[in-house]
Amino acid sequence: MGRIICCGLGPGNPDLMSVRADREVRHATHVAYFRKKGRPGEARTIVEGMLADNVREYPMEYPVTTELAADSGEYAELLAGFYDEWAIRLTQLARESDVVVLCEGDPFFYGSFMHLYTRLQGRAEVDVVAGIPGMAGCWNVAGLPIALGDDVMTVLMGTLPEAELERRVQNSDALVIMKTGRNLAKIRRALLSAGRLDEAWLIERGTMPGERVARLRDVERTDCAYFAIVLVHGRLSRRREAAE
Amino acid sequence: MGRIICCGLGPGNPDLMSVRADREVRHATHVAYFRKKGRPGEARTIVEGMLADNVREYPMEYPVTTELAADSGEYAELLAGFYDEWAIRLTQLARESDVVVLCEGDPFFYGSFMHLYTRLQGRAEVDVVAGIPGMAGCWNVAGLPIALGDDVMTVLMGTLPEAELERRVQNSDALVIMKTGRNLAKIRRALLSAGRLDEAWLIERGTMPGERVARLRDVERTDCAYFAIVLVHGRLSRRREAAE
Repeated sequence: MGRIICCGLGPGNPDLMSVRADREVRHATHVAYFRKKGRPGEARTIVEGMLADNVREYPMEYPVTTELAADSGEYAELLAGFYDEWAIRLTQLARESDVVVLCEGDPFFYGSFMHLYTRLQGRAEVDVVAGIPGMAGCWNVAGLPIALGDDVMTVLMGTLPEAELERRVQNSDALVIMKTGRNLAKIRRALLSAGRLDEAWLIERGTMPGERVARLRDVERTDCAYFAIVLVHGRLSRRREAAE
Repeated sequence: MGRIICCGLGPGNPDLMSVRADREVRHATHVAYFRKKGRPGEARTIVEGMLADNVREYPMEYPVTTELAADSGEYAELLAGFYDEWAIRLTQLARESDVVVLCEGDPFFYGSFMHLYTRLQGRAEVDVVAGIPGMAGCWNVAGLPIALGDDVMTVLMGTLPEAELERRVQNSDALVIMKTGRNLAKIRRALLSAGRLDEAWLIERGTMPGERVARLRDVERTDCAYFAIVLVHGRLSRRREAAE
């Protein structure tokens, strides 16, 4: 009997993978990873050059990504079927050997693998290896402490309604806004209404090739990569920056 | 000219250090780390057995920890002097060779190193290596996704006033409460008033020897280690747990 080992790969730079994830990936005989149809897959790209020659790969291709509205019944049904199938498939594979599942960031922090994790309970032995969350890669790239002292930090999804985003932006010291993509224009309006647009940074592909760090107010595009992150630093960092 | 390389060591298990931090620590000729007087130091303990034989060590001993109230003028002055001195000392050391500074968790996330980081600007080349934040080690140990979907996650310090803790606990899906220690009784009261004590977990020494995971309602002690973390999982995780 094998195990299913879900490895958090961290924010994208392979040097930021954990020692354990690095070892599991290099020794893997079977690796599975999510990807959008027709794409190499973000997680697979991170481990390029690290896999053994004879590894067997199982790309788990999402049946839909942005073609259907995320709140439609059809979308939910298609995805549930997709996760059900892969839970069966991985359980079968794990009867014969270990299977390493590659996941960006930290699997337990808003990770897609969780849809498999809950389905695999009681069917296979599952081991999750923590990773540096994508947001931590981004705030390290921005080069300022995201939060200090008794700063309150809030993590928000850009998919939330605009009024809720605005209210929560007003109500926190440090902010991390994820799932930006097509929500960028809405996020920008919420930050502006809350009087905090000038403090916000947009980090794209943090720690990876093509990394970009910009003040959000200077970004003219109305969308960006889904995994780009908007950051607002806590009080002490902002105070120091203002003093410089 | 050398550099000051601050390595985030992650939550405590050395296997969860990044590949880069592992390499920097093993090759270091000079290492510095914070510690409480008379203690080995949490960061130093994580790298036990990894340092080169001829490494030179610089324990940076806090002049005070809990002997004085954290909001007293005397405390602030003593700590400022301590950070000033070590910023000078590290700058001098870095003129001759690289100096690796060991830090638990992720340095940019509520890390003490930030007090040195700001003082070192313009005086020495400083490089910060991201680490898995302590909270991520803790929620991985708890074995449930801390947040999913559009859950809002809030990070709070146990040092905040009780009324503010209560209000913010009511207002968030997932919660991470750090700096617990002597604030544990207050945190418990705030969770109880907000009707969320039953959902809370206390994780002590997550990923390290002596690790403990308990429902906070079952913990009778009124204090715990300063670095213990209280977690409340987001909506989807709680719903699944309730269904089991």
